[in-house]
Amino acid sequence: MANKLTSRAEDYSKWYNELVMQADLAQHSEVKGCMVIKPYGYAIWENMRDVLDKMFKETGHQNAYFPLFIPKSYMSKEAKHVEGFAKECAVVTHYRLKTDELTGEVVVDPDAKLEEELIVRPTSETIIWNTYRNWIQSYRDLPILINQWANVVRWEMRTRLFLRTAEFLWQEGHTAHATKAEAIEESEKMLHVYAKFAEEWMAMPVIRGVKSESERFAGAEDTYCIEALMQDGKALQAGTSHFLGQNFAKAFDVKFADKTGKMEYVWASSWGVSTRLMGALIMTHSDDEGLVLPPKLAPIQVVMVPIYKNDEQLAALAAKMDELSAKLTAKGIRVKVDLDDTKKPGWKFAEYELKGVPVRIAMGPRDLENGSIEVARRDTKEKMALQMEGAEEVIEALLNKIQENLFLRSSEFRTNHTTEVNDYDEFKQVLNSKGGFVSAHWDGTAETEEKIKQETKATIRCIPLDAKEEEGKCIYTGAPSSKRVLFAKAY
Amino acid sequence: MANKLTSRAEDYSKWYNELVMQADLAQHSEVKGCMVIKPYGYAIWENMRDVLDKMFKETGHQNAYFPLFIPKSYMSKEAKHVEGFAKECAVVTHYRLKTDELTGEVVVDPDAKLEEELIVRPTSETIIWNTYRNWIQSYRDLPILINQWANVVRWEMRTRLFLRTAEFLWQEGHTAHATKAEAIEESEKMLHVYAKFAEEWMAMPVIRGVKSESERFAGAEDTYCIEALMQDGKALQAGTSHFLGQNFAKAFDVKFADKTGKMEYVWASSWGVSTRLMGALIMTHSDDEGLVLPPKLAPIQVVMVPIYKNDEQLAALAAKMDELSAKLTAKGIRVKVDLDDTKKPGWKFAEYELKGVPVRIAMGPRDLENGSIEVARRDTKEKMALQMEGAEEVIEALLNKIQENLFLRSSEFRTNHTTEVNDYDEFKQVLNSKGGFVSAHWDGTAETEEKIKQETKATIRCIPLDAKEEEGKCIYTGAPSSKRVLFAKAY
Repeated sequence: MANKLTSRAEDYSKWYNELVMQADLAQHSEVKGCMVIKPYGYAIWENMRDVLDKMFKETGHQNAYFPLFIPKSYMSKEAKHVEGFAKECAVVTHYRLKTDELTGEVVVDPDAKLEEELIVRPTSETIIWNTYRNWIQSYRDLPILINQWANVVRWEMRTRLFLRTAEFLWQEGHTAHATKAEAIEESEKMLHVYAKFAEEWMAMPVIRGVKSESERFAGAEDTYCIEALMQDGKALQAGTSHFLGQNFAKAFDVKFADKTGKMEYVWASSWGVSTRLMGALIMTHSDDEGLVLPPKLAPIQVVMVPIYKNDEQLAALAAKMDELSAKLTAKGIRVKVDLDDTKKPGWKFAEYELKGVPVRIAMGPRDLENGSIEVARRDTKEKMALQMEGAEEVIEALLNKIQENLFLRSSEFRTNHTTEVNDYDEFKQVLNSKGGFVSAHWDGTAETEEKIKQETKATIRCIPLDAKEEEGKCIYTGAPSSKRVLFAKAY
Repeated sequence: MANKLTSRAEDYSKWYNELVMQADLAQHSEVKGCMVIKPYGYAIWENMRDVLDKMFKETGHQNAYFPLFIPKSYMSKEAKHVEGFAKECAVVTHYRLKTDELTGEVVVDPDAKLEEELIVRPTSETIIWNTYRNWIQSYRDLPILINQWANVVRWEMRTRLFLRTAEFLWQEGHTAHATKAEAIEESEKMLHVYAKFAEEWMAMPVIRGVKSESERFAGAEDTYCIEALMQDGKALQAGTSHFLGQNFAKAFDVKFADKTGKMEYVWASSWGVSTRLMGALIMTHSDDEGLVLPPKLAPIQVVMVPIYKNDEQLAALAAKMDELSAKLTAKGIRVKVDLDDTKKPGWKFAEYELKGVPVRIAMGPRDLENGSIEVARRDTKEKMALQMEGAEEVIEALLNKIQENLFLRSSEFRTNHTTEVNDYDEFKQVLNSKGGFVSAHWDGTAETEEKIKQETKATIRCIPLDAKEEEGKCIYTGAPSSKRVLFAKAY
């Protein structure tokens, strides 16, 4: 096991980095900006991916796979898109290395220069819409509802494991529709899929909203988002869904014949979540002892640790634990029985706390006599004694309770860290004291948004979809406003 | 639906390309050498991936993820590896584009040149062993049993969909062991996992063997392989598993303390299969009408097509079909009921034949009266009438029968196309007439192997693991040989 973590209060950012590494989730690689996702971290991501994939299929989507490389010229076809994405990207210029005859070193072969450079995809709208052109002739070919699980690269100078890395894993949905209304409906539908996933699986409450113009995806008409709140009072954008209008259809000349035979440009949406969700999951629930995982996504939901003095006791405990383990497994619960005799129980307790296993069961010689077990919850650290007989029912219910409790706890935190303010002084004071979401009136201009950002580092996270109409005055300019928006400092 | 396919007899290679495109499996992208895997093709790949992933986990492996990019210098650390892989690869030299002030065009920013070029991974031994160095201190850290699902890039000039593309999807297992015996055992174990998958899921018989030295993976001590035979008599390497010795441990200085405290280099294996398996699957079973899919991997196992004259009939048929569909679905069978009223039944029949759906059920007004259905097998094209009552049992059994039949059929084909020869004239004559595997004695030298290759285009596919000891003479040099090896022309 690892060293004690720096506490959140002492240094939140350090706590996060140490936790990610000590809990064996990920590490920096020697390749600048790229991470290695370790088996335990990847197992959590796999669980997330499998659930999301099922939700996408249930809403009518199919998976496909498009090329990693995008010709440089594609990036320029949509004016805003190129501004947003061409700047910091990995550029492939050559297709061969050779051994230098003089030095014997391996060098780039100057004769193998590409005619047109290739960009490692930062997102795939351009290559996909270039392909859709040949797939779409008439309204009968629509809608196209496709998703892709892939790696993408955005060159980042300042990286943080999971939150901001040059290469990351994600899914990107790309859909094509005959009408504007249908494309908007799709973008909103997928936003709700993301929100449902965040709340029901990650136990992480999110605000569903729409971005201000300056925070929009490059090339979108509207960007919907889910915004979560981390324990340090900073917001984290956990997923986005874009209504792309006809921008990419126009850039790549994708038209369809409608029922009357008239040629129209196709309407589009795109939507994505990434391994950034791992960062959100970690920061929403974890504590100074380590990771806290919602049971629904935990690779190990229940761990069993025997406490013994000799081999005979160990054998007897192992037999009992295997019995209970079989009953739990039959209920679909993911169990690990840890019989490793090179580690002490205390070490194991700390290790599984660090790894965020929701329920720990300990069993010693006295338990053998009494037919009992000791059950510890990771979320509240409460312990209780249980009879082994029928324990599987109690543990199953406990896992559900932990899942619920984590959601309640994070919802309560968010409620306590969402503040309505009505003037700029109060705004700054809240931001600098407790942080969190600050709900305030804004005059709707990019200028005001930019000034507030420069002066306070807070950005408009979103205009909540459920924001109620309310007459007010912009906290910065005093100009009239009809609804509150959410500000926060953000990851 | 598509045009009639070129027949296999007329032009096998053209047949393959047309089939892949018309059955909506994949297409070339505008990015040289990269393919787009379309939803139907991807659904088959997903099925393959899910089965393999389960088999890997059942044999104790965990998934992880390593960076896409490999620093150029890593490639040079293992002498043979760099020879094999550094030659044709995608090289990232810059990390930014910019808008040229004069022309307004997007160009590579010369100020954003990387200090060290990055290679897009052609395989990940180097980056993974560079990481393992920090994961391994003592024998307690071993074995490491990790697999990665990823995209890789090997610059290819002549590409063929699925069989040879610049970018492809694959899995690569990378394991680290304390002893040579354990690493060899692992390489062999995974070879058998691949063979089991090929035979039981793809219904494709394979020869398990070991490669001659010149066909070995660059950096391996031994390469095990499974070799399949396609319908045109050419062999296809369907999967490889490498015993890497201590080559990568030495190149990346990965040592461990054994139980006595002595420092030793770690032993390694690596193993992989790729989207190339899609090509193997297609070419093993398909016919001039289109794809033939083994039921276990078919995205749609049963399709139902109504035959009707009016809406009333359609509604009645739809109700009956939904009933049967529910019963089949309850058995875990993947069913599609095709009620699309813009397409005629004849069109649909041809379309699902092209797509290789194993079982087609048709139902017309007379069937409604009689409580019957018509069932057609894709593999033999036989049709039979069935009572709807209890049909789900018959269909379930039929799917198993089709799976078996495909394996028997391809096994028989292979038996008929495996020929023992004892002299070089016969060798050439067999190769040029019926093709297939040619089993012959070889003197074990790379020179002879190379000469035979140059003269006949046949390579040694493998030395079968079950090759029996037998005294013989090399067909080329007459030198003594103790076992037969398998030659073939290959993909």
